[in-house]
Amino acid sequence: MTTASLNTVPFVSVDNMMKLVLKIGIEPFLKGLADTIEADFRRWPQFDKRERVPCHSAEGVIELMPTSDGDLYGFKYVNGHPKNMKEGRQTVTGFGVLADVHTGYPMLFSEMTLLTALRTAATSAVAAKYLARKDASVMAIIGNGAQSEFQAMAFKALLGIKRLRLYDLDAAATEKCRRNLSAFGFEIVACKTAEEAVEGADIITTVTADKRQNTILSDNMAGPGVHINAVGGDSPGKTELARDILLRSDIFVEYPPQTRIEGEIQQLAPDYPVTELWQVINGEAEGRRDDRRITLFDSVGFATEDFSALRFVHSLLKETGLYQDLDLVADPDEPRDLFGMLIRAEAAQKAA
Amino acid sequence: MTTASLNTVPFVSVDNMMKLVLKIGIEPFLKGLADTIEADFRRWPQFDKRERVPCHSAEGVIELMPTSDGDLYGFKYVNGHPKNMKEGRQTVTGFGVLADVHTGYPMLFSEMTLLTALRTAATSAVAAKYLARKDASVMAIIGNGAQSEFQAMAFKALLGIKRLRLYDLDAAATEKCRRNLSAFGFEIVACKTAEEAVEGADIITTVTADKRQNTILSDNMAGPGVHINAVGGDSPGKTELARDILLRSDIFVEYPPQTRIEGEIQQLAPDYPVTELWQVINGEAEGRRDDRRITLFDSVGFATEDFSALRFVHSLLKETGLYQDLDLVADPDEPRDLFGMLIRAEAAQKAA
Repeated sequence: MTTASLNTVPFVSVDNMMKLVLKIGIEPFLKGLADTIEADFRRWPQFDKRERVPCHSAEGVIELMPTSDGDLYGFKYVNGHPKNMKEGRQTVTGFGVLADVHTGYPMLFSEMTLLTALRTAATSAVAAKYLARKDASVMAIIGNGAQSEFQAMAFKALLGIKRLRLYDLDAAATEKCRRNLSAFGFEIVACKTAEEAVEGADIITTVTADKRQNTILSDNMAGPGVHINAVGGDSPGKTELARDILLRSDIFVEYPPQTRIEGEIQQLAPDYPVTELWQVINGEAEGRRDDRRITLFDSVGFATEDFSALRFVHSLLKETGLYQDLDLVADPDEPRDLFGMLIRAEAAQKAA
Repeated sequence: MTTASLNTVPFVSVDNMMKLVLKIGIEPFLKGLADTIEADFRRWPQFDKRERVPCHSAEGVIELMPTSDGDLYGFKYVNGHPKNMKEGRQTVTGFGVLADVHTGYPMLFSEMTLLTALRTAATSAVAAKYLARKDASVMAIIGNGAQSEFQAMAFKALLGIKRLRLYDLDAAATEKCRRNLSAFGFEIVACKTAEEAVEGADIITTVTADKRQNTILSDNMAGPGVHINAVGGDSPGKTELARDILLRSDIFVEYPPQTRIEGEIQQLAPDYPVTELWQVINGEAEGRRDDRRITLFDSVGFATEDFSALRFVHSLLKETGLYQDLDLVADPDEPRDLFGMLIRAEAAQKAA
């Protein structure tokens, strides 16, 4: 436990999360996060896994994503509201909690808007480390919104990718992405079409925000040997790839019951063969078979990745001190005397 | 919204929750809470309902309890670890969040250890208002732990019950309960046996903590016309009443799919007839049929009650100011520019 007191829980605000990432360094933070995600994928069978618990409305969705490894429990609250952007709000925001399974007491409460962006990128890079060609050096990023720079940074940190080809329907988004990445040693080409972006790319990252079925990548755009990192298709009815590409690819997923509902493979039969990423990571399944195959990581985000992210942040609290203590858990002197705590607070108020 | 800023969320700590309850007054707070719970039971069909989402371990359980009325979304995190008491920790602790369904943004983050104790008692009193005899004046409380005083205060606030008969296996718990309630105008009899406690009682509240199947009330202890408020039987394998009492009672429950797993009625066939409390409250079903029947409220606690509690607390924030603002939601100037927010924070740090 980070804190000695029974009643307080460390809280990492947005401000402290930014300070934490900058103190560790963006790339080292992404590397440490990726290592934790990879370590947890390696012990996948230990986790209590289930699909997200959603609350759908006309405007979006609110989801709870719980999981546990038997010692620690974590969950994330996350929303997805595409119309938020027009109102100056984030499409996706989140926060999460890490708790001790043995006492049920929370150990960490953290913002997870930034942390989700970081863990999504780190997970993509972990998958690509196992699935992309070893000589991959050029990445196309189609969709240059809030997630795009994090993807670029994670692929640089883990795979050394420095050559980027950017495309977005909105040229201003591409310009924002190019500008934000300019200080990090990338060689960046801003493209006028998605077709231009994928020219010569070894890795294609699709990360658009549109909540409909869409064809960001048509069949002719995926050449032999490419690795597709499909991040944007992540809810029922929202896909980015032409179905024909899926049929030509070796498909890798996080948690099949969830991906079949939310991922690109919702376009395929419910029993279409896919490989689970954790099996590739711990050597139980083959990843890339040869340099001519198309590999596809159908990323939708899974609870264990948030668990890993919370675990990683928790491990940094003591050395950095970048948190506040929240008075979250009632702590009467005698556990059965909750009411006594209340009336003694009144007596103390009157005495003061 | 309580706060004008997009990125902050009001947080009610344990300390502020105590101040809030004491500022409003314990009984008026319980009344206001009960009114909100009752109002939400009355519009029960509007709610998105599901069983709790549990994570079981050898030592206890961690649960998420989400619900929504289509405009607001709420969830509670709650644990139950009976062995915690020996280690100086609470058996049950909790916290919760209220959010806006239309944006997915959280509106309130609150402690819910105290608030759960209050809402459980308020719900029991709401049920008894509809189910106990109108002339009920004496309540037995069997089990004098953390929940007992809250039950007493809620029954006084809503039904005017002032005569209490207390019993606990541990006489020190009874003495603690008697002492804590001494300033509130009750007439209290400390009893040596459960049989003695139920003598002449119009309402019997059972609220013991043992996590096994138990018989706190044997068949001969439930006389005609009594209302049984069974609070302690609230998880699989944990019951308090002799099965024969159930067979002689009219049984009222919150959400049948959950109560059949967790409540006293886990002792009965899965299709045994029970009445839903919300139907009694909004006039769709009969409550007490006559002064000779035994009525039984098989309370396990349901997500809508926590939702009501969060809604009630949220309604008090503005007038009391008893909260802190947490920097929980990332708020970049341009929603798509989350990464830019991060690197500008670095530039600001260097400039400072």
